[in-house]
Amino acid sequence: MRKIDPVKHEQKRRDILEAAGRCFAKDGFRGASISSICSEAKISAGHLYHYFASKEAIIEAMAATGLEHAEQRFNHLMKSDNPIEGLIAEIEQANSQSCNMQQHQIDMRAKKQLHVDMLAEAGRNPAMAEIVNKHSAKIRGMLATLLETAQKRGQIDQALDPDLAAAILLGAMEGVGNMTMRDPELDMKKKLEMLSTLIKRFLAPGSSKEK
Amino acid sequence: MRKIDPVKHEQKRRDILEAAGRCFAKDGFRGASISSICSEAKISAGHLYHYFASKEAIIEAMAATGLEHAEQRFNHLMKSDNPIEGLIAEIEQANSQSCNMQQHQIDMRAKKQLHVDMLAEAGRNPAMAEIVNKHSAKIRGMLATLLETAQKRGQIDQALDPDLAAAILLGAMEGVGNMTMRDPELDMKKKLEMLSTLIKRFLAPGSSKEK
Repeated sequence: MRKIDPVKHEQKRRDILEAAGRCFAKDGFRGASISSICSEAKISAGHLYHYFASKEAIIEAMAATGLEHAEQRFNHLMKSDNPIEGLIAEIEQANSQSCNMQQHQIDMRAKKQLHVDMLAEAGRNPAMAEIVNKHSAKIRGMLATLLETAQKRGQIDQALDPDLAAAILLGAMEGVGNMTMRDPELDMKKKLEMLSTLIKRFLAPGSSKEK
Repeated sequence: MRKIDPVKHEQKRRDILEAAGRCFAKDGFRGASISSICSEAKISAGHLYHYFASKEAIIEAMAATGLEHAEQRFNHLMKSDNPIEGLIAEIEQANSQSCNMQQHQIDMRAKKQLHVDMLAEAGRNPAMAEIVNKHSAKIRGMLATLLETAQKRGQIDQALDPDLAAAILLGAMEGVGNMTMRDPELDMKKKLEMLSTLIKRFLAPGSSKEK
């Protein structure tokens, strides 16, 4: 048996994930076949199964990469004096990035499409539902920790249940993000400013009294 | 040529829409075939094309029905003294309905699934994108009118751009609604209460000063 070169193995794995990403973006999770992914990644099906047992396993690996990225952002925010202000600044900056770089905009669009595809698939495919649920629970947990930290520092309303508030914020952010898929002429900059206003007002310290 | 009985024609049209709804719920927009819809509606393909030229035409008719329902709710809210309070009360009541009636919960789930399927399909199918965009613009216009009315009465923050605020609120409501697809254990009642808090705080009169 050949020895596996871990560097080459990891590179090939990434190549397959990128190829699969292009196939999913084009045809959706259900529409993209293993054979189309193989031809995009220029490998045989037998070779692909060496790396991933199924399309679900590919999505799971993509979700894990997204989660690593989210964890990095989370750790970075947790180091700042005001993690919620940092989060809002990140949301507002998302626009200036997308204005400057066309590629970034295309990537964001593909990412949103993949998220919507995954959610649609989760309603009919228990394996996908499990991936989506686990992913969502982890992101929600990170955001809840951010909120709790900000609450302890008196930076946001201390009466909000952090876990529930995190779920609502995630839903709102995802839904507002998808509005550009519904209304393509929606001004991205203004949209993000209004989202930031919504988040600030929801979390503002003392707002529970005037609820 | 046979004369068309308008009552029978309308009844058949509704039967087809209901049958298509069951097929879309089961297999998604892309997965459901015209032939599966025909067999569910117990008619021939030739007969179906008498009513609808394509799957997109079926979805368009479903969206039109949804819009009629939204218009009725909108007109009802516009007659009340405080349309935004009415809207929030509707959101909070959505839960007590779903607790009491299992069928209502199943219907809501199917509706959410259809919305997510339509959004996923819109990213790849220009005909679907047009249906989604038109539908979204109309709902957004109704909500913007509600907000403007409430602004004139001093019931909500007058500094908010009503059209933009309507887009953000719709995105947030849709996204929070979909959170139960991501996190099935999320408490529905608590979720709706927190959503109502989010909306109230976002719209509260005078909140623009403390932004």
